[in-house]
Amino acid sequence: MDNEVADLPSGPLDVYRKKASFNWKDMLCFIEDEEIRAFKHHVFKTLENDPVFARQPGEDVPLERMRELTFLRYEHDRKFHLFLSTMSSQIDYNSVKLPLTVILSDCLGMYDWALSAKFFLNKGVINYQLLVVVICLQTFGCFALTELSHGSNTRAMRTTATYDPSTQEFVINSPDFEAAKFWVGNLGKTATHAVVFAQLYTPDQVCHGLHSFVVPVRDPRTLLSLPGVQVGDMGKKLGQNGLDNGFAMFHNVRIPRENLLNKTGDVTPDGRYVTPFKDPNKRFGASLGALSGGRVSITRMALVNLKLALTVAIRFSATRRQFGPKDTEEIPVLEYQLQQWRLIPYLAAAYALEHFTKSIFMNFVEFQIGQMMKDRSDRQAEMGREIHAIGCSSKPLGSWTAQRGIQECREACGGHGYLAMNRLGDLRGDNDPNCTYEGDNNVLLQQTSNYLLSWLHIESPLHTVDFLNDFHKIQESKFTATTMDQCMDSAVPLEAYKWLVCFLLEKSQKRLQQQRAMGQDRFEAFNNSQVYYCRSLAMAYIEYNCLQRFHELTTDDDTPAALRPVLRKLCSLYGLWSLSNHMATLYQGNYVSGGKPAELVQMAILTLCSQLKDDAVALVDVFAPPDFILNSPIGCADGQLYKNLWSTVMQGSQVLERPSWWKEFCSDKPVVGSLNAKL
Amino acid sequence: MDNEVADLPSGPLDVYRKKASFNWKDMLCFIEDEEIRAFKHHVFKTLENDPVFARQPGEDVPLERMRELTFLRYEHDRKFHLFLSTMSSQIDYNSVKLPLTVILSDCLGMYDWALSAKFFLNKGVINYQLLVVVICLQTFGCFALTELSHGSNTRAMRTTATYDPSTQEFVINSPDFEAAKFWVGNLGKTATHAVVFAQLYTPDQVCHGLHSFVVPVRDPRTLLSLPGVQVGDMGKKLGQNGLDNGFAMFHNVRIPRENLLNKTGDVTPDGRYVTPFKDPNKRFGASLGALSGGRVSITRMALVNLKLALTVAIRFSATRRQFGPKDTEEIPVLEYQLQQWRLIPYLAAAYALEHFTKSIFMNFVEFQIGQMMKDRSDRQAEMGREIHAIGCSSKPLGSWTAQRGIQECREACGGHGYLAMNRLGDLRGDNDPNCTYEGDNNVLLQQTSNYLLSWLHIESPLHTVDFLNDFHKIQESKFTATTMDQCMDSAVPLEAYKWLVCFLLEKSQKRLQQQRAMGQDRFEAFNNSQVYYCRSLAMAYIEYNCLQRFHELTTDDDTPAALRPVLRKLCSLYGLWSLSNHMATLYQGNYVSGGKPAELVQMAILTLCSQLKDDAVALVDVFAPPDFILNSPIGCADGQLYKNLWSTVMQGSQVLERPSWWKEFCSDKPVVGSLNAKL
Repeated sequence: MDNEVADLPSGPLDVYRKKASFNWKDMLCFIEDEEIRAFKHHVFKTLENDPVFARQPGEDVPLERMRELTFLRYEHDRKFHLFLSTMSSQIDYNSVKLPLTVILSDCLGMYDWALSAKFFLNKGVINYQLLVVVICLQTFGCFALTELSHGSNTRAMRTTATYDPSTQEFVINSPDFEAAKFWVGNLGKTATHAVVFAQLYTPDQVCHGLHSFVVPVRDPRTLLSLPGVQVGDMGKKLGQNGLDNGFAMFHNVRIPRENLLNKTGDVTPDGRYVTPFKDPNKRFGASLGALSGGRVSITRMALVNLKLALTVAIRFSATRRQFGPKDTEEIPVLEYQLQQWRLIPYLAAAYALEHFTKSIFMNFVEFQIGQMMKDRSDRQAEMGREIHAIGCSSKPLGSWTAQRGIQECREACGGHGYLAMNRLGDLRGDNDPNCTYEGDNNVLLQQTSNYLLSWLHIESPLHTVDFLNDFHKIQESKFTATTMDQCMDSAVPLEAYKWLVCFLLEKSQKRLQQQRAMGQDRFEAFNNSQVYYCRSLAMAYIEYNCLQRFHELTTDDDTPAALRPVLRKLCSLYGLWSLSNHMATLYQGNYVSGGKPAELVQMAILTLCSQLKDDAVALVDVFAPPDFILNSPIGCADGQLYKNLWSTVMQGSQVLERPSWWKEFCSDKPVVGSLNAKL
Repeated sequence: MDNEVADLPSGPLDVYRKKASFNWKDMLCFIEDEEIRAFKHHVFKTLENDPVFARQPGEDVPLERMRELTFLRYEHDRKFHLFLSTMSSQIDYNSVKLPLTVILSDCLGMYDWALSAKFFLNKGVINYQLLVVVICLQTFGCFALTELSHGSNTRAMRTTATYDPSTQEFVINSPDFEAAKFWVGNLGKTATHAVVFAQLYTPDQVCHGLHSFVVPVRDPRTLLSLPGVQVGDMGKKLGQNGLDNGFAMFHNVRIPRENLLNKTGDVTPDGRYVTPFKDPNKRFGASLGALSGGRVSITRMALVNLKLALTVAIRFSATRRQFGPKDTEEIPVLEYQLQQWRLIPYLAAAYALEHFTKSIFMNFVEFQIGQMMKDRSDRQAEMGREIHAIGCSSKPLGSWTAQRGIQECREACGGHGYLAMNRLGDLRGDNDPNCTYEGDNNVLLQQTSNYLLSWLHIESPLHTVDFLNDFHKIQESKFTATTMDQCMDSAVPLEAYKWLVCFLLEKSQKRLQQQRAMGQDRFEAFNNSQVYYCRSLAMAYIEYNCLQRFHELTTDDDTPAALRPVLRKLCSLYGLWSLSNHMATLYQGNYVSGGKPAELVQMAILTLCSQLKDDAVALVDVFAPPDFILNSPIGCADGQLYKNLWSTVMQGSQVLERPSWWKEFCSDKPVVGSLNAKL
């Protein structure tokens, strides 16, 4: 099996690679099967071999050029796209592995998320509108939902679509600039058509709620905006600047009746509204339901960012030497307890999330199959609620873990981590929107806690809350580990998490009741029960869930025996480290007491970090992309930290030249004296 | 008093301004006296009125141009500089207020930290070398300490300065590229002279350790590099890109003997080394001691960043409306408990740090006066150790609080916070190096814990560890608050912090002894006692210190009675919020027990946030710079969130134009069909 996977270049990292407790190629083959590895190899090689993908680490590219490059990269190689679309059509919904579309997103994202976003947004629009309108290769699509003054509160969107039976057209209108569509990916420079979400009005002036309409915005032959449409570019963002986010205002733009995407409701030629849904709330839910798969994907996107940052920081830490037991001999910074504690728990989190993102993706696929089969059973409805609860909390878990992890990696690489060429800044900037789009993390967590608070009525086809059947028994359980060795079993944090979820569930319920008893209405009581209660509950639930699935993997007989020891350590470390953030709550609820448990958990974390430090390089080798994709001189596979960094600095543009504005410096200053004369 | 301070433009923020419990102008006048207010006004107006300082929020400026602009802004207005230097020479070391140099740094930093850094680095060099060499207006200076392969371990620098008695010159040499000077601010494009730190060798091949030398690097008439010097620009960074950080390699560059900055040692014309210090370790300490004031300044710089971010996020939160009790009426997001809890504790931290940074700056001034007076007393030496311990932990406290606070502000502003024009990205990027330069935060904290571990031998002229005299009594103390009202007094977290420092001090000592008893050498035992012990100790010490000084201010009779209530709330909130991160340790050491204390602390935090939400806008009005300086449309004083944001978007470059590369889009694609035809 090994000989399929290419060797990594030897160099200073070999010291650690030789000390690893497992074979990284075995781990790679366990995580990704041959087909996936071959596909990734193909995508990476295609990018590397095509000059349009050439880039220099840290180069200063103007915004306009970044958008152009992303477009050229998107457009350039038709064969490449055709190949990808052939591959992505081969999704096998019965398999338990990630489909190649997800792998493609991983690969493009590792290169640049803006490219991946541009690709998938357009593809999403094509899929979404395919049944209604004829699509040509000259169109470029985007989704226009958010408005300048409304994001989270999607129901409050103010763009209108009024039906005019005399011409059988909808009239799309933005009442004012506050209702301008805003943040629309692809709309800034390239989109020719937008799927616009607007309030549908029939001629009787009745509003039927938010519906989506295909609205042409630019002439595909000239890229000039169409009459009545004011469309433009929002400018620079904190990251993903290759993606042209834009805005649009519509001044009574007329579109044919057929451009209403009539999944949730339709209008007859004479202007009557017809819908299969009776309850407008249900209709609204169904129309937004289609978006919830995105959150599962974002969890994975965040994970990819974390993997890249860890590759950079771990390889740097294994080759950067600073201080040592003797003045004459310096040791790699990875040898320091502090550096291990800063980075290795995030490495454990990356492995936990690797399995978790795959696992919940398969949950989502199961749900989607039910939808496609038009399954109207209670179980299917329950599964919808459960996957919604998972997605609304997995996105916060993934995006925040990545956000904090990338920041820690940046700081752990010191000054060199602050150089743009080493990519940690781009990763941080590119990851940031994962906390915000498809629902602000904090707002989404409320969906998950609402789900959990209805637990007495939950069936849990995906089994994430099965343990709540033992609610009362769990409430009475206690922390039982008395030695550090016992504590290093992931079953220990897993049991603690069960207790934690039950404790926070009861506390949240009581808090809500208390607020209502004080006379607050539902809205108020709900808002005043978020901090320390509902929000913590949702986070504990999803952390438990992630840990529980990883725990199962490490104890599964199908997991290769040679890999189980290192996976178990990673699982225990992830569990204990996540749990340590809730230690005060464990004390508060008397699950633990006295000084010992906290100390056991702490010592177990440090011991696991220390045991894993020799595996850390091999563990990032497993998920590291080729150097060309990683694009970070301090993170190259050969570990030649300084050679790579120095070469990249010297290859920069006009590095050694005097500035173009040198005359500004030298003119017009009285000479009082000059050191130069002394030379 | 009020009529001196200009009113703020009225608008949607007035709702909150009217509800504030105090007069913001009184608070401003309490924090900054008339002279400071007038000076700030002058600096801000000068910047606003000079076209060279014109800028557009979020504009995309190429790296080369950013460096040029910073230089032009630095050079452009000689009158402005002369005015500043006149003002900054008026430092009154006997006053208890910040000198105008610090205020100037605040003001320039609020505009752009790169400008502030460029100014103060050059000024620092001039001050540093003034006694040795004649300086002309045509020179531009920089400090070259860090090398490519060494940062934290300054003693391991490898650049050499070998004395040649035959010509009475030093020969400066970089043994290889790993010893290239790296990260030198101003060296990338503008520096003509560098203060280079190198190992001094006498002709007898004896190394006398690190010394500083003035080395000309570029011809001031041409800005071309001088023979033997390879000097260049490091390229793009995560922030502060107006500052040209650079590198330099020296190939046996000869400089006159006089260019040795002989504060700590000198070489006679015939090549003998003479020094007032006998112990080379002491000499090394003295030569680096001059840099330690920088950490106190960085704490302040970080605070300024936090203030700017909070101004943006609080004003946004007070004007952004989303959801509400009824479908028809939306409420400002600042009304939500969750949003309050995310932002208001950082507002409290900003007020705590405002007082703290002033207070420790005065401590530093007291120490500096002693140095200038050549005070050789034990007390002066003790004060040096204590200010070192403060600076090494205040920088981590300030820079991390700002880092996390800015990130929270970014996320709390949702998508709009992700637009570059709203400045939160720049603030995050510009603040980041505060965690790294002048010593990595985690490495610096070790200096503070080392100081504390020697507490039996400490005298504490600055009184930061006086309470350790009651060590044993404090160890036996317990949390006594039983109601939330009691808990809302900042004395409660203050007492808890005393216990926490004592607990962690004892734990750290025991941990160290334990590691030594296991046979580890000093180096190893020390490294293995950092996480959960020494590091936590240093953080608890500085948080205590910050809280304690703020607590004194709020109970001081000189603090205006009308301001004391809001300051007390801020102080309690800061104390409880900081303490809540250590809750598990309080349980672990049995300072608290049972479910109640954690709940009291949580409820007190939420209550204080809720009590302070109507003051939040006024509290940021106090420290907000004028809109021109803040440069963030969603943070303007008039609160016209959408108008300002929309105008800024529309004023961007080529917003509505089709991309220059539109033909790439439109050419060469077969038309399968077109929606456009339907229009």
